[in-house]
Amino acid sequence: MKVLLSGFSSFSHHTVNSSEVLVLLLANGKIPGIEIRSCILPVTFKDSFDVLKDQIDLYQPDVVISLGLAEKRSVISLEKVALNYVDCEIPDNTGTLFKDSPVLSSAPAAYFSTLPLKEMLLVETPYPVEISYSAGTYVCNHLMFRVLHYLKDKNIQAGFIHVPLLKNNQEMILDSLQLMLSKLLQTQNTK
Amino acid sequence: MKVLLSGFSSFSHHTVNSSEVLVLLLANGKIPGIEIRSCILPVTFKDSFDVLKDQIDLYQPDVVISLGLAEKRSVISLEKVALNYVDCEIPDNTGTLFKDSPVLSSAPAAYFSTLPLKEMLLVETPYPVEISYSAGTYVCNHLMFRVLHYLKDKNIQAGFIHVPLLKNNQEMILDSLQLMLSKLLQTQNTK
Amino acid sequence: MKVLLSGFSSFSHHTVNSSEVLVLLLANGKIPGIEIRSCILPVTFKDSFDVLKDQIDLYQPDVVISLGLAEKRSVISLEKVALNYVDCEIPDNTGTLFKDSPVLSSAPAAYFSTLPLKEMLLVETPYPVEISYSAGTYVCNHLMFRVLHYLKDKNIQAGFIHVPLLKNNQEMILDSLQLMLSKLLQTQNTK
Amino acid sequence: MKVLLSGFSSFSHHTVNSSEVLVLLLANGKIPGIEIRSCILPVTFKDSFDVLKDQIDLYQPDVVISLGLAEKRSVISLEKVALNYVDCEIPDNTGTLFKDSPVLSSAPAAYFSTLPLKEMLLVETPYPVEISYSAGTYVCNHLMFRVLHYLKDKNIQAGFIHVPLLKNNQEMILDSLQLMLSKLLQTQNTK
Repeated sequence: MKVLLSGFSSFSHHTVNSSEVLVLLLANGKIPGIEIRSCILPVTFKDSFDVLKDQIDLYQPDVVISLGLAEKRSVISLEKVALNYVDCEIPDNTGTLFKDSPVLSSAPAAYFSTLPLKEMLLVETPYPVEISYSAGTYVCNHLMFRVLHYLKDKNIQAGFIHVPLLKNNQEMILDSLQLMLSKLLQTQNTK
Repeated sequence: MKVLLSGFSSFSHHTVNSSEVLVLLLANGKIPGIEIRSCILPVTFKDSFDVLKDQIDLYQPDVVISLGLAEKRSVISLEKVALNYVDCEIPDNTGTLFKDSPVLSSAPAAYFSTLPLKEMLLVETPYPVEISYSAGTYVCNHLMFRVLHYLKDKNIQAGFIHVPLLKNNQEMILDSLQLMLSKLLQTQNTK
Repeated sequence: MKVLLSGFSSFSHHTVNSSEVLVLLLANGKIPGIEIRSCILPVTFKDSFDVLKDQIDLYQPDVVISLGLAEKRSVISLEKVALNYVDCEIPDNTGTLFKDSPVLSSAPAAYFSTLPLKEMLLVETPYPVEISYSAGTYVCNHLMFRVLHYLKDKNIQAGFIHVPLLKNNQEMILDSLQLMLSKLLQTQNTK
Repeated sequence: MKVLLSGFSSFSHHTVNSSEVLVLLLANGKIPGIEIRSCILPVTFKDSFDVLKDQIDLYQPDVVISLGLAEKRSVISLEKVALNYVDCEIPDNTGTLFKDSPVLSSAPAAYFSTLPLKEMLLVETPYPVEISYSAGTYVCNHLMFRVLHYLKDKNIQAGFIHVPLLKNNQEMILDSLQLMLSKLLQTQNTK
């Protein structure tokens, strides 16, 4: 099985995008029976799809899976649906910002992921996984919609997975303890 | 203000105990106005208190704070109360195991922490903090009870803080994604 | 403007459904220029739509708004989209339970709400309101999908609003809904 | 064995309190060898104990068991300890709200339940049961503390059980409570 994986490069205040790290690690690892190719996409409405489309045409994969970062989610989200809708709070990396608009004006309202999400969810995973019914209204949903629209009559499965922020909690815990010790000192001094 | 911090050394399957790492980092860092001394205690009912008591007698701190690992909690817990009760699921590092017993048979049912928990909680911390009303029924609660009993007529504040596991989620997320890709391959093959 | 409002009757452990209370209060209140008719629907896949459809046919409203309870949400949610998908964790009140199924097998993947959500959101409301991109995969989403499918070629606007559990927030939620209905009337008048 | 059972009447958004329903069902059912009397208490700091105390004085039971609802817990919790501490997030039904205060200023820090919790836990119950080491810091803990303080020199056993929200679990919870009461009777008889 040939799998094309995409991640996003850095955007906003994220120096490194979790999805980029994970795609590179997945491409370096070996999964028996699976041949992985990876590509890293810019966080832009226009180029993210164009770059991925070129890779699809070139590589002719059986499956296309795009990964994106969902900063506020604490689980891995298998996205069920891409909406024909875009509504940005912040511009993309080229400064483009859409408000209350369709992704493609002549396309249907939504596409469902063509990955077997229920089966994938049944795998016992060390990290929690859920099916999500909203991929947001920004570049991630836009890319997912463009890919599913492009592949709607082709025999290639496609879907989108949101991943949490990769992080270590040590520094935050340490800072918190230091702040509380300082507070303790204050309460002592004001006695 | 002189603060004596204690952490626990490794136990069970934890090669390094989060509380040990944090105590060492706190002792190495500088907090203006606070002089920190640290000690690392064995995870044993008997020696944990004996070692800490010797340090208290030697150092004569203003405040004694013990840190312990609460593997299943996702926040920093400021413990409100130590119970005169011990009930183990697993033995301590010397093989000692108490079931449904008092810590000290002639002591009161409980001691409250003498740290100003409400004030410490009000600090804006990068990591979530809460006041906890149960320090468990194992070595952590036992140590907290022994310390508060020992200091009950002395002018030294004392308390216990449970800290979460220090961790990085990258490996777990990566493993989860690989498992789901393998599952996807299976669903392809069985078509 | 003639508005048909629907709420749901009790289900699960909720003796009284918040949506029922709010619909009755809205129908009893007066909003200048708006004539409200209300109906309370059973929490069942089949009858909820059938009952509402009969009311639509009878009353010929300009707008149909269905309210439902979202127990875990703390804001009023204006639903953007209904998915052609149903996946239950618990059965409906007749014991019917769908897993991983379409609402209507020959219908499109999704319908967008035809209410002017962005305008309604811009109203200053005493209770927080947001646009939601998932109405879930249970009876609420099912009803919303059936209504939008039924009205797709008719000149009747329709949408779904999820409301929080009523505690001491009832008056604020009621006021917020009335303000949004008034705004909806304005957008109608300025067409 | 004479058992006095108390439940709480409705509070907050709960039209019916699970503990009230269960107490009434337990009082209506028959458990060989056990004579049950029930009373329903208001969710108020002052009256809940006063009403129960009058019933204790009047009925002279061998055992007093108070039930309370723990909305967020999914198991039956046998409470081990009542703390001399109260700290409310919401007021009681009379509008009274205590912050960071003792229940009784001259009483000990805590009382342990005098029910044979370990023995009651060993009963095979259809619904999961656990021993809990925190009864919270609200009306439930307050009542438990007042009762144990009142009975400390009397030959009457007392304790508190937190029950989950009733959904479709009512029969299993009821059966579990009856089994534990029967076990309690056995431990009395073998003394």
